[in-house]
Amino acid sequence: MPLTSPGTTLGVVGGGQLGRMLGEAATPLGIDLVVSDPTPDAPAAPVASEQVVGDFDDEETIRAVAEQSDYLTFEIELADPDALERVSEETGTPVHPHPETLRTIQDKLVQKDRLSEAGVPVPDYRRVDSAADLRSGLDDLGYPAMLKAREGGYDGRGNVPVESPDDVATAFEAIDGPAMVEAFVDFERELAVMGCRGDGERDTFPVTETIHREEILRETVSPARTDEDTRERARDVAHDVLDVMDGRGVFGIELFETTDGDILLNEIAPRPHNSGHWTIEGCHTSQFEQHARAVTGLPLGTTEQRDPAVSANILGDVEERQAASLSGAEDALATEKLGFHWYGKREVYDLRKMGHLALVGDDSDDYEALLDSVRSVRDGLTFQS
Amino acid sequence: MPLTSPGTTLGVVGGGQLGRMLGEAATPLGIDLVVSDPTPDAPAAPVASEQVVGDFDDEETIRAVAEQSDYLTFEIELADPDALERVSEETGTPVHPHPETLRTIQDKLVQKDRLSEAGVPVPDYRRVDSAADLRSGLDDLGYPAMLKAREGGYDGRGNVPVESPDDVATAFEAIDGPAMVEAFVDFERELAVMGCRGDGERDTFPVTETIHREEILRETVSPARTDEDTRERARDVAHDVLDVMDGRGVFGIELFETTDGDILLNEIAPRPHNSGHWTIEGCHTSQFEQHARAVTGLPLGTTEQRDPAVSANILGDVEERQAASLSGAEDALATEKLGFHWYGKREVYDLRKMGHLALVGDDSDDYEALLDSVRSVRDGLTFQS
Repeated sequence: MPLTSPGTTLGVVGGGQLGRMLGEAATPLGIDLVVSDPTPDAPAAPVASEQVVGDFDDEETIRAVAEQSDYLTFEIELADPDALERVSEETGTPVHPHPETLRTIQDKLVQKDRLSEAGVPVPDYRRVDSAADLRSGLDDLGYPAMLKAREGGYDGRGNVPVESPDDVATAFEAIDGPAMVEAFVDFERELAVMGCRGDGERDTFPVTETIHREEILRETVSPARTDEDTRERARDVAHDVLDVMDGRGVFGIELFETTDGDILLNEIAPRPHNSGHWTIEGCHTSQFEQHARAVTGLPLGTTEQRDPAVSANILGDVEERQAASLSGAEDALATEKLGFHWYGKREVYDLRKMGHLALVGDDSDDYEALLDSVRSVRDGLTFQS
Repeated sequence: MPLTSPGTTLGVVGGGQLGRMLGEAATPLGIDLVVSDPTPDAPAAPVASEQVVGDFDDEETIRAVAEQSDYLTFEIELADPDALERVSEETGTPVHPHPETLRTIQDKLVQKDRLSEAGVPVPDYRRVDSAADLRSGLDDLGYPAMLKAREGGYDGRGNVPVESPDDVATAFEAIDGPAMVEAFVDFERELAVMGCRGDGERDTFPVTETIHREEILRETVSPARTDEDTRERARDVAHDVLDVMDGRGVFGIELFETTDGDILLNEIAPRPHNSGHWTIEGCHTSQFEQHARAVTGLPLGTTEQRDPAVSANILGDVEERQAASLSGAEDALATEKLGFHWYGKREVYDLRKMGHLALVGDDSDDYEALLDSVRSVRDGLTFQS
């Protein structure tokens, strides 16, 4: 198809930082964005031709986006797969990834069922509809374990650790709905692979090491500080995961490397993911450009890494929700080879993802120093006045 | 100053491809653009919060931009320095680079006078206000020489070669206004250095080799294929040029490397320049990010090069002005390590700059192959139906 101006319009349900970085990556390819988000002036608005203000699961909003778009995608799992599917059929606007994939992923139990049926290694788990289910599940899996709401959780929300039989009742009450319980994984480190499904092709980016605290991603190291064989197996698992997915796009595939050296699937996000932000500076093609290419049916870019790269999230460090005002940015910007990414969110609250930093190196043995550097720059930033 | 949302707004007179790439680079820093351009839906519009429609030299338009902006800059020399200066004083919006620098650069004779007074090596030249001036100038400089209109020329427009005394009358008539005549420079190659003046700091990017045909830039090779000593001298000259400039921002400094091995200044652009587009892929900081940093008073980024890089312009190849429709883009996008930049112009005409490609390598000896590759990809693109 020839490239024109205006060219392809990509409709995106969700206008957060992922939409913003998608827009930054799409413009050079001649792709314009239309986004929807319930908050006016959402992070993606400055790089989109238009923002439709409306909820992620509101069918009218999704239709308003689709009617202006050649392709439809989403940058948040809260998008409603039924509405996406209906709107796509009505307007003839293809939606990627396939809503069925979103449906599968939204329900953590269905996700695990589908993946384990396909031979993807996952931690042991049991379905939980009652406190009795949880108790009997834990009899099988042992303590400690993680009780997870089947739907709606992210950044650790919806997850409750169960340390002993005494916790069972409280844990089940905290979730208060359909859930699953998962065996505690004794992991050496957490890994993530950004996978991509294009038009008749698929690929994976190099394996990233993800460092969480309070179940929120804090830093990444790429490639992951593990042996080549483990990285190879992680990419193999990611390829198997991609086979279970339907439709085109980028998928964030979170993995455990267990203390026994096994790779187990943790979770999947059917979209660009925080653990792949480092690709903007670290790879020739970023995960965002790759997603724009994949969804609009263009050839995928190379996933080859350019240089070792680490990233660190800039998180809210304030107790009260307030207007965002970050001190220390000038010092950060004076750091050599540092990519600075501000998400443009008007308000900050505790642990909210407000931006991130990425630092590239040229010495592949120097990960620890790189990580120390990016942490030290990040620790110089604060929203506290 | 703390970083907020909304944060700094950068007003830009001109909304062409330079404004577009400036916007792509500014968003991650939390900087929003407001641009002006006479053409609605200008290339920069999709990445700007707003486009004011109006001429580059229209004071009302410039005021409308300035009133919404914290800083004012321009991406085209056709901006009116007097209007910029008045609007800046009235609105209190700082303008960078300084309008006096724009005034100096707009008049090629004044530019050369100021630079040669400052000790910057320039080709021999004479002022031309009449055919008689031209004739006597050529008696000094010899034939061939280049007659240049003092104002308004770009991409070779406003330049007329004078091969012999027989051409004098016709050449002067073709310019028909204040001019200068410049000695023909027997050059080995053309070079360009992107210089930058920040808040109390200045720096230069690595030296680029520029390849022109019909006086229009076709390709660049970075670093330039010349010896280290020559590159060093080119950067020295660029530093001397920066000392003559006033205000902050990025400057495109075009140079000749003569067959005698001398470096002579050709021309200056007080803005990001086509010869620096390769920095997007080739450096840690692009010329566009650098310009956004410089103008808004943020620290400059490193000018260190990441990898050897070549670029090739995608130019209009049609006789009649028509709606832009580029064939071959999918093949280009399938090329590994290729950055693809579409400028979003609605119409194409012969030799119009419609986009560019950048290709990075990892073998510093392999420039010829890289250049062949990017040319071959570029040659696979056409606007002809």
